[in-house]
Amino acid sequence: MADPSTSPPLTRASVVAAHDLIKPYVHHTPTLTNATLTRLASTPRTEAELAGSEWEEKKKNKDGSTTTSGGAKPIMRLWFKCENLQRIGAFKVRGAFHAIERLKREPGWEAGGGVNRGVVTHSSGNHAQALALAARTNGIPAYIVMPSISPPPKIAATRGYGANVIFSGSTSVEREAVCAQVIQDTGARLVPPYDHPDIVLGQGTLGLELQEDAARMMAEAEKEASTRSPPPADGSGSAKTTTPDGLMQRGGGKKGLDIILAPCGGGGMLSGVALSCEGTGIRVFGCEPSHEGADDAKRGFESPDGRRVEVVKTLTVADGLRTPVGAVPWSVIRERGLVEGFYSVSEVEIKRALRLVLERFKMVVEPSACVPLAVALYNEDFRARIQREYGDGGANVGVVFSGGNLDLEVLAKIVMEGKTETEKKE
Amino acid sequence: MADPSTSPPLTRASVVAAHDLIKPYVHHTPTLTNATLTRLASTPRTEAELAGSEWEEKKKNKDGSTTTSGGAKPIMRLWFKCENLQRIGAFKVRGAFHAIERLKREPGWEAGGGVNRGVVTHSSGNHAQALALAARTNGIPAYIVMPSISPPPKIAATRGYGANVIFSGSTSVEREAVCAQVIQDTGARLVPPYDHPDIVLGQGTLGLELQEDAARMMAEAEKEASTRSPPPADGSGSAKTTTPDGLMQRGGGKKGLDIILAPCGGGGMLSGVALSCEGTGIRVFGCEPSHEGADDAKRGFESPDGRRVEVVKTLTVADGLRTPVGAVPWSVIRERGLVEGFYSVSEVEIKRALRLVLERFKMVVEPSACVPLAVALYNEDFRARIQREYGDGGANVGVVFSGGNLDLEVLAKIVMEGKTETEKKE
Repeated sequence: MADPSTSPPLTRASVVAAHDLIKPYVHHTPTLTNATLTRLASTPRTEAELAGSEWEEKKKNKDGSTTTSGGAKPIMRLWFKCENLQRIGAFKVRGAFHAIERLKREPGWEAGGGVNRGVVTHSSGNHAQALALAARTNGIPAYIVMPSISPPPKIAATRGYGANVIFSGSTSVEREAVCAQVIQDTGARLVPPYDHPDIVLGQGTLGLELQEDAARMMAEAEKEASTRSPPPADGSGSAKTTTPDGLMQRGGGKKGLDIILAPCGGGGMLSGVALSCEGTGIRVFGCEPSHEGADDAKRGFESPDGRRVEVVKTLTVADGLRTPVGAVPWSVIRERGLVEGFYSVSEVEIKRALRLVLERFKMVVEPSACVPLAVALYNEDFRARIQREYGDGGANVGVVFSGGNLDLEVLAKIVMEGKTETEKKE
Repeated sequence: MADPSTSPPLTRASVVAAHDLIKPYVHHTPTLTNATLTRLASTPRTEAELAGSEWEEKKKNKDGSTTTSGGAKPIMRLWFKCENLQRIGAFKVRGAFHAIERLKREPGWEAGGGVNRGVVTHSSGNHAQALALAARTNGIPAYIVMPSISPPPKIAATRGYGANVIFSGSTSVEREAVCAQVIQDTGARLVPPYDHPDIVLGQGTLGLELQEDAARMMAEAEKEASTRSPPPADGSGSAKTTTPDGLMQRGGGKKGLDIILAPCGGGGMLSGVALSCEGTGIRVFGCEPSHEGADDAKRGFESPDGRRVEVVKTLTVADGLRTPVGAVPWSVIRERGLVEGFYSVSEVEIKRALRLVLERFKMVVEPSACVPLAVALYNEDFRARIQREYGDGGANVGVVFSGGNLDLEVLAKIVMEGKTETEKKE
């Protein structure tokens, strides 16, 4: 990977430049809305729904008595950035292609035989496949160090993109040792999964597309509404303008997004999205699982000294978010203050959001990708904030569906777990 | 529903007019491509993959000896019309909204109190929810006759759209009797699920969008390819133009679709799509399950007298395609010859296609919606035809994903059934 000191500055303009570089190689994924999810996000949860969650307890504590009301009453219109439909099924190709494009532009890299020496990373997840694809596309060898206990389908998929898979033990020390050996043997350049400016800038390009698409869709819907359904003089309204779905889908008369919610694992994408929003007035929040301390960025962010938590050991179902946040992302997220805050959700809430997406949105998303939606639907702190800060006008909330790669067997298991719950609700 | 004699003629122009009427109420769903599925469709199946299927047998019979070659070698670029992302999760809202718009324009209907008398249908499937939504949007009562043994979630969903659900026995005679009683009691107008010109014209609007979107995407891809990656003078090509994915996604230098594959149950959508293609040169084929005679349209189409099969009793997993084709659709499909032929697939092939869509396309589709993709991937008669008629240039094939409504438990079951098979392949 290019020497970080040669990377472009971490600014919105650099994200725009990164977008120009990677556009030929990645999908401009669709931004979609879903009336049911927007309606659910804008419906206060009942006391029964809150029962058993931390929010029930909290209310009791504050009032000193039993709560009798339901949850907060936010108005949220959700705009989903569908990176589950991205190449390799996740946003990671953006960073990987950008890293390679930057390498190609590094003085001396090509002349020094960089193309033949290749690139290397250690990952068993989406970054492995992303780098393999980006390398193959550019005719560059890729070496992917994976724990020997990785699931065979992941190994096969990575090899399917033409990568050389090299096995290691499963601890980070073991993987890094093998990685170092590969570098020594081949001269390959390391492309880390998130902790590098080129990766951050590449991932941030999804934020640009989401902003632009949501603003364009809102403008189109306003135009359509005004040409097609002028409100009748008698004030009775037309079918179109009076349906709640119609009103909810239109952006509420605003010109663009108010907020973007993005998942935070290593923080490469979250910090890139934050850069893509710099100076636009769009506020960015990070979303994490709370399970076994997976909310490391939240804890670091809210600590008095604002230092990142560097060690995390969690087996949250959101397996893409098990890593602690990296130093480069943290410099954007916390030190420059481009992320405004963090919210976390439980395992049950993540799986419930996943089932909703399958059932109502007809999309396959991985558990990590459901974390922001779970925040919008179930985190009463966030929901109360939206109610407080946006009131009746509501907020246009961009939600990053970061990827859709999960074992179908895991999917089936999560579906079956929710069977009783779903039936009860319907 | 409007008197069929007052319906517009069954022409492409009438589909265009229907589109103008329903545009404010339905989503223009995305047309998407998927490199993996396009590659699979364009890869000959091996002898091992054909083993145990009817194609293995056939080859043996023809040659009089054991076959040693794999399947046909077609080149197909697939363009998916994602009506699983449509409102209520299926294309049926197009016909339902069009039926209501036509009613509103029927002389005397509104003056005669039609708005208060409402509409009625018998359905437990997507049409029920579609009509309920279209009626509610227009402030018209909807009466939905459903068998009392319908799954509670379907009943709840239909009621969720504000419809009056009225129970009946489960035979068609019982349902029609209840329907007749509702009409007598309320004066509601019957809106049948498929056998009416207004429904046919409404459903056909998806064909217009698919044609236009695919042509635009091909033009954009060509333009992008020519501006961004001029082939170097040394003939070595650029990374972009030489990747197989790039070549496959681009329409092969053509200006639009060659073929559309659509599922056929009652035939309302297939006949509407055929009308949308009239005079465009795009060929339309119907796709059916073969299980327990569900391929009624195929059998009728291929019979010497071309008469439709009027009775079908099948429990194919593609539950939206269990009905026999209707008379009005048949007049377009067979009598006017606007559909060129039919292909059928087995239950195993439908479920295999569904798993592929979940795993590689990250979309939830119902079994009925997978039938056209299953034809493209697994029907060797169709695949051999594409090879024969389109050769190395290949064909641009539009594939209608008709809907995404299936019980998550059924989804989980189909996933688990395929576990062994999937693992074997990877």
